[in-house]
Amino acid sequence: MRVLWVYAHPDHHSLNAALRDEGLAALTEAGHEHRLSDLYAMKWKAVLDRDDFTGPPEPDATLSAASQHAYTGGTLSPDIRAELDKLAWADTLVLQFPLWWYAPPAILKGWIDRVFVKGFAYGVPGRRYGDGKLAGRRGLVVTSAGAREPGLGPRGIHGDPRHILYPLLHGTLWYTGIAALPPVVVPGADRVSAADFRAAAAGLRDRVLSIPDTEPIPYRHENGGDYGPGLVLRDDLAPGLTGPDIHLR
Amino acid sequence: MRVLWVYAHPDHHSLNAALRDEGLAALTEAGHEHRLSDLYAMKWKAVLDRDDFTGPPEPDATLSAASQHAYTGGTLSPDIRAELDKLAWADTLVLQFPLWWYAPPAILKGWIDRVFVKGFAYGVPGRRYGDGKLAGRRGLVVTSAGAREPGLGPRGIHGDPRHILYPLLHGTLWYTGIAALPPVVVPGADRVSAADFRAAAAGLRDRVLSIPDTEPIPYRHENGGDYGPGLVLRDDLAPGLTGPDIHLR
Repeated sequence: MRVLWVYAHPDHHSLNAALRDEGLAALTEAGHEHRLSDLYAMKWKAVLDRDDFTGPPEPDATLSAASQHAYTGGTLSPDIRAELDKLAWADTLVLQFPLWWYAPPAILKGWIDRVFVKGFAYGVPGRRYGDGKLAGRRGLVVTSAGAREPGLGPRGIHGDPRHILYPLLHGTLWYTGIAALPPVVVPGADRVSAADFRAAAAGLRDRVLSIPDTEPIPYRHENGGDYGPGLVLRDDLAPGLTGPDIHLR
Repeated sequence: MRVLWVYAHPDHHSLNAALRDEGLAALTEAGHEHRLSDLYAMKWKAVLDRDDFTGPPEPDATLSAASQHAYTGGTLSPDIRAELDKLAWADTLVLQFPLWWYAPPAILKGWIDRVFVKGFAYGVPGRRYGDGKLAGRRGLVVTSAGAREPGLGPRGIHGDPRHILYPLLHGTLWYTGIAALPPVVVPGADRVSAADFRAAAAGLRDRVLSIPDTEPIPYRHENGGDYGPGLVLRDDLAPGLTGPDIHLR
């Protein structure tokens, strides 16, 4: 594998930092290539704005149009271009972060906002949700949560991680063609014992090394015939139902 | 009403800017008080880190513990304290942003990450999901999406906005006790005609002025008896089902 591991936690001695080291060590030991984007260490600029485009100002262009112009014209800011190069190189994307307010921390969201530019990650009409320039890649979300199981689970008050992470798994990874794998979730992260950590580390090592063999979440393809006019799910599929799971084949 | 309007769009001439002006004008004309946090204009620091706590370093404290110490000790960074004061003053919170990757832009996520500190927005055991220090307030999400209806809808490929926004509506607002209202969503935002804009502006004015009379999304209370051991929904409620909607009364 060629793995781009995007990591977002501010503390060097955190559970997340220790898990990241385990995951990267597992990759190294098995002979896989990897590159790390440690967003806090990089002091990654989280906020997408017009400064990201170093060409002449285009005040009349929408942000997405301006980003596409900058991408095609080679005038994206250098920090974004460096991440695009890593993503173009990688066949596997790992996004690791603590779950803050049931979503990625701002710095990780800002990596997506700024790096997934139009023309690179999206913007080819009709080539979304399973298709597009990033297709062929696999994406693994690794996250820790203060919430404990089973409250964090299918019938728990916090929700099922796959539903909580639907905007990231379906609306971001799958949207751009990246096959989203079942996420790795470490619950109860504020109260991890040494034994808990050993189990989480071993579990993460297994999950990371089995990325090529793991069945992705079976989201439906936009172009697979399951959606009819207006991109609405056909009446005969998951009839009468709504919710994130109707988009599973 | 006393409305804190948190706004996150980088462009002064955007659809969002025009809608914000409509919403604030409607409030003013009706005699309501409002304060605006224009995050881009404020150059809001999006990234939560240890610099947010101006007291002595506490490297052994978790981030959440350090934030709570800083809150109780009065050593939170001044930009966060200013937002806490606004939120304490307000009875209504409006969060307005363009939907980027089916989630708020990083700068808005960073407002939540940094302002919803432990001890203020959460952290009292057993007082979550409908209860807590922020209870009694109402929250309205106002967002624009490039995606069009009905693809953005209950059976559409992009999903139902209430499911997409579940981490914000349920996991953030309701978690801290803020009653989340049905969100205002402006779809097809890249192709808004003058007539579309007039309709969206009129709709937003109505929704903003009717905040006190709007029925909140009927999420279940943590302490309402609907959740059993481990905070799992009782078997007799929404039997056999999973997904965000099982948490509706």
